[in-house]
Amino acid sequence: MLTLYYAAGSCALATHIALIDAGADYEAKPVDFAANQQRTPEYLAVNPKGRVPALVTPRGILTESPALLAYVAQSFPAAKLAPLDDAHAFAEVQAFNSYIATTVHVAHAHGRRGYRWADEPEAIAAMKRKAPQVMADSFALIEDGMLRGPWVMGERYSICDPYLFTMASWLEADGVDPARFPKILDHRNRMMERPAARQALAEQAA
Amino acid sequence: MLTLYYAAGSCALATHIALIDAGADYEAKPVDFAANQQRTPEYLAVNPKGRVPALVTPRGILTESPALLAYVAQSFPAAKLAPLDDAHAFAEVQAFNSYIATTVHVAHAHGRRGYRWADEPEAIAAMKRKAPQVMADSFALIEDGMLRGPWVMGERYSICDPYLFTMASWLEADGVDPARFPKILDHRNRMMERPAARQALAEQAA
Ligand SMILES: N[C@@H](CCC(=O)N[C@@H](CS)C(=O)NCC(=O)O)C(=O)O
Ligand SMILES: N[C@@H](CCC(=O)N[C@@H](CS)C(=O)NCC(=O)O)C(=O)O
Repeated sequence: MLTLYYAAGSCALATHIALIDAGADYEAKPVDFAANQQRTPEYLAVNPKGRVPALVTPRGILTESPALLAYVAQSFPAAKLAPLDDAHAFAEVQAFNSYIATTVHVAHAHGRRGYRWADEPEAIAAMKRKAPQVMADSFALIEDGMLRGPWVMGERYSICDPYLFTMASWLEADGVDPARFPKILDHRNRMMERPAARQALAEQAA
Repeated sequence: MLTLYYAAGSCALATHIALIDAGADYEAKPVDFAANQQRTPEYLAVNPKGRVPALVTPRGILTESPALLAYVAQSFPAAKLAPLDDAHAFAEVQAFNSYIATTVHVAHAHGRRGYRWADEPEAIAAMKRKAPQVMADSFALIEDGMLRGPWVMGERYSICDPYLFTMASWLEADGVDPARFPKILDHRNRMMERPAARQALAEQAA
């Protein structure tokens, strides 16, 4: 049994969907960001970074979306969520997910949590102002090459897909017009037709 | 034969060291940041993101440090640079490297390239001012728990070690007093005693 700590609408959605894709036996536990529950001593004992996702496994607690996604793929090989026997193809999957985590997700965070990187309200406001453009630029690289179609890696669905879907679900709220990204929009729509995404969203809305 | 594009003093050092640790047959090609070579059409054809590292393999071009480090470990299993047959232990390695890439490296970038996230000079200056504290806070988590010692993952050297070493080599230049981090300093010193780190640094200085 695995336990996923998530916050509704957060990047933890990617791992949540992957767990369902994998057919894993898991329980999803909400962390209430509105109440700052991620900063309570109880949650910091789970993840000292004060972030979601965190995944409790029989052997310990794992964090960081790209690591969790690869873990799910490797732990449930029958689900074929990554090319596990091909180091080059696996690196392509990981490079995509690392780009999401280091660049796309970080761009998003500047619109909401600029206080991580500056103290002055004006500086935080300046990051917020630029965030839509930084997000759009990071999505443009995906639209113009990284997303092979129909799935991120081409014909085969993989752990890249729920991660892209999660980021793409933020576009409107981040002030980016998704019409600029027809391939990503089409991908988002096809993800929404999959039972795994629907189930994860339903569980998070419950 | 693999070709690593790097800039001296950049995060590409981690992959460079790992290639040497792995006994890989590689060539290291410098990208001149002072001349903005990373933004030339020639280099953008290698890596459209305009960043290093990029690794040219017989099957294509790979990017993103955490993906490259895992690729090196998986491609040269005899070097035992990661626990390849244990999904949980591998996820611990990947979680560490993802934390470096998404949090430590990103903290560092705010001291040098704040223009990525804001346009106003005052906002960029505000990020630069806070960067030493953000870096120090991200290193504190490593010092206080993530670095098991003697190596990041404990007794076994892994692809986490050259990555931590690379970030730790930036501490002084980033305005952080490394004396606050005795375990990380000790790790840095032991890395410097290893032939792989010495050789990579010598190649980058040549
Ligand atoms: N590098 C981490 C980042 C995790 C992260 O920043 N999660 C956000 C939600 S999307 C969070 O927990 N934020 C809470 C906070 O900053 O207080 C990952 O990829 O999993
Ligand atoms: N997420 C990438 C980041 C790569 C990156 O930002 N590299 C820096 C050097 S440490 C770079 O190429 N900077 C050049 C620039 O920003 O123009 C990784 O982990 O490899």
